[in-house]
Amino acid sequence: MNVEVVAIGSELLLGQIVDTNSSWIGQELAAAGLDSYHQTKVGDNAGRMKSVLELALSRSDAVICCGGLGPTHDDITREVIADIMGVELKLDKQLVTKIEEMFTSRGRVMSPTNLSQAMVPVGASIVSEQPGTAAGLICPVGGDKVIYAVPGVPYEMKEMITGTILSDLIARSGESAVIRSRTLRTWGMSESGLAELLADYIEGLDVSNADEAANKTGTATLAFNASGVEGLKVRITTKAADEAAAIAVLDTKEAELRAILGDLVFGVDGENMEVAIVSLLAEKGLTVAVAESVTGGYIAGRVCAVPGASEVFRGGVVAYNNQVKQSLLGVEDGPVVTEEAAVAMAYGVRDSLGADIGLASTGVAGPEEMEGRPVGTVCIAVASSDGAIATTLQLPGDRERIRQFSTISLLNLLRQVLRQAPVLEN
Amino acid sequence: MNVEVVAIGSELLLGQIVDTNSSWIGQELAAAGLDSYHQTKVGDNAGRMKSVLELALSRSDAVICCGGLGPTHDDITREVIADIMGVELKLDKQLVTKIEEMFTSRGRVMSPTNLSQAMVPVGASIVSEQPGTAAGLICPVGGDKVIYAVPGVPYEMKEMITGTILSDLIARSGESAVIRSRTLRTWGMSESGLAELLADYIEGLDVSNADEAANKTGTATLAFNASGVEGLKVRITTKAADEAAAIAVLDTKEAELRAILGDLVFGVDGENMEVAIVSLLAEKGLTVAVAESVTGGYIAGRVCAVPGASEVFRGGVVAYNNQVKQSLLGVEDGPVVTEEAAVAMAYGVRDSLGADIGLASTGVAGPEEMEGRPVGTVCIAVASSDGAIATTLQLPGDRERIRQFSTISLLNLLRQVLRQAPVLEN
Repeated sequence: MNVEVVAIGSELLLGQIVDTNSSWIGQELAAAGLDSYHQTKVGDNAGRMKSVLELALSRSDAVICCGGLGPTHDDITREVIADIMGVELKLDKQLVTKIEEMFTSRGRVMSPTNLSQAMVPVGASIVSEQPGTAAGLICPVGGDKVIYAVPGVPYEMKEMITGTILSDLIARSGESAVIRSRTLRTWGMSESGLAELLADYIEGLDVSNADEAANKTGTATLAFNASGVEGLKVRITTKAADEAAAIAVLDTKEAELRAILGDLVFGVDGENMEVAIVSLLAEKGLTVAVAESVTGGYIAGRVCAVPGASEVFRGGVVAYNNQVKQSLLGVEDGPVVTEEAAVAMAYGVRDSLGADIGLASTGVAGPEEMEGRPVGTVCIAVASSDGAIATTLQLPGDRERIRQFSTISLLNLLRQVLRQAPVLEN
Repeated sequence: MNVEVVAIGSELLLGQIVDTNSSWIGQELAAAGLDSYHQTKVGDNAGRMKSVLELALSRSDAVICCGGLGPTHDDITREVIADIMGVELKLDKQLVTKIEEMFTSRGRVMSPTNLSQAMVPVGASIVSEQPGTAAGLICPVGGDKVIYAVPGVPYEMKEMITGTILSDLIARSGESAVIRSRTLRTWGMSESGLAELLADYIEGLDVSNADEAANKTGTATLAFNASGVEGLKVRITTKAADEAAAIAVLDTKEAELRAILGDLVFGVDGENMEVAIVSLLAEKGLTVAVAESVTGGYIAGRVCAVPGASEVFRGGVVAYNNQVKQSLLGVEDGPVVTEEAAVAMAYGVRDSLGADIGLASTGVAGPEEMEGRPVGTVCIAVASSDGAIATTLQLPGDRERIRQFSTISLLNLLRQVLRQAPVLEN
């Protein structure tokens, strides 16, 4: 079963609204084991809408058409679908009553303009969920295909998709397979490096997919997704007979991948670097404080975004000015873009804020070089009662990217220290 | 000139990433006066990519194809475009050198996998901007059409579109009218409030557009764009005979709007709140330091993002833990979510970091209430040698939105103090 999504609205093409509806529908279709190969945005123009919908019908079994069901003159989805079905629009009296009641219950009077929302193509049926004045429509086309028309208002659309349309699609498909994904989040290797590291494994998957598809225990595929300063994501997707079989495949593949990727993996699905850090610190009963120069508040900002951070995060000093590095952190006079300065800052903030571990960043975010060191030179350090570790990075990109990469690099250094060093425990 | 956008990537169809690239490109095309009638998402499948691109070429003058230029096996945009052009892919030696240098400058060695990124369809040219290892390609098809291939990584894509592709498109279009926009950025009023405030003005524009279109001095339209914690943007767009005429219209309309909106306007175009703050401080020769509890590094993080911030920003203390508020900022024992505590923090950080002005935030970001005050209660303060001003906010939303709204609210309070109070000057 192959389902296509068409989003209607000139405001989408103009970028005034980002089309998050199609993305959400795509997720729901995948989770229901339904294929979706195309998603198209088209403006409020009858001719182009008709062409796009007809093309979609020609290459897909079903089309979900989202938007253009409002009461104004540019809402023409109903007319275009009736045209494609080769039928007339007819006023649905029950729908008129329903819309009138909605207005009455809000203490308002229905405007005659809203009557257009009660026009339904002959032969179409109405989706039972209807949170707003726009009715969802199930429109059969040519015997074996179907267009679902849903409003563009996200919560109205979602209620109709989850309430009626997904089950209607699954019933039509006669299939029972489910598709599930899991994402391993990594930091520390380039996309191409990761691809090489996993080349044999991916080849093996291709072979076993051919087998397993036969015995229905579930196929698995891998995809990489570069997410900038959030690292590289490795997504495992499986198609299996049911939920339990899918989870079993994901568990196996995750274990196999972790055996290859080792410490590169810092989290799963929504677990970002700062969530990983906060839970590692909590697990070990350790607290942290941070001295930030080049990252200027970004590390504190990210760590504090995690609910429960207050248990493990003491606070920080943004030592943007060199005098502040000296007065608040006890760093000695001298060059500040050095590993020595980073270590001194890390110890300084650890002591003055009374934390178990101190972190520090110092470097050159640009636009100009500093102390003869080029833009992108960044020194980071982690210090505890067991000693300190520091490293120098040479980062690409503009000011913002240098600060962001410094932030995640320092958090990752802390993660490595926490994972590898039981000596750091209290 | 009709330009179509095709976004490549199965992760887009599966909704794992929302396709914001197409929306951004749509905005840029509209601002450049180029039409865009279709935007399509398609997965990493050669056959379907080819069909979608061929269809796009058949109905549009130019196609911007976004994504699939990485080094891995599922990055097949180069192959598909070569197929459509009816040519071979050829290794571009200059590109190999360029990519190798990128790796070397980061202290890494290029993997052989990355060689695929140096493969270019014969007859295609390379976009001069190339912030990453993926090169942008300009691929002529059949004499009068063109496909632009750009990476899916947003900042790489944006650099190529604004640097090369928009001008290339405008040159191809042969149009002479120019479309220019200017955005006034506001903080402090709701979208409906702003719409009411400007209702008469917008009506007046409609009338004068009808006139001026006739005498070609340039038309002007307004659009509102709610940007969450970045405030509300009022975008003026004009279509005029040439650059000078367009700028003249924008200047006039900006002056008229500022007369109505007054102090609500904090910046123009890319000038966000922190840029406005840094330039106001620099103008007055004042320095600032910040004590952050509920905002936990966000204020420092935003201010430090501005090049030149080091001239006016001394640094900050992230006093997440109450003991830190006392030891580093000299706040007395007692409740911390109060205006008194915010003022004490602001004075504390001002004194200990030696700044002219101290800022402070303290509040309840959740998930739980604190000191009997509900989630969303935030106290902010600005202190100087002339005294202090503090206020209590009751903010909606989740932890992240509360922290973000606190951040911009405090920056805006500082802006108001700086604009209204010459007494604060040195």
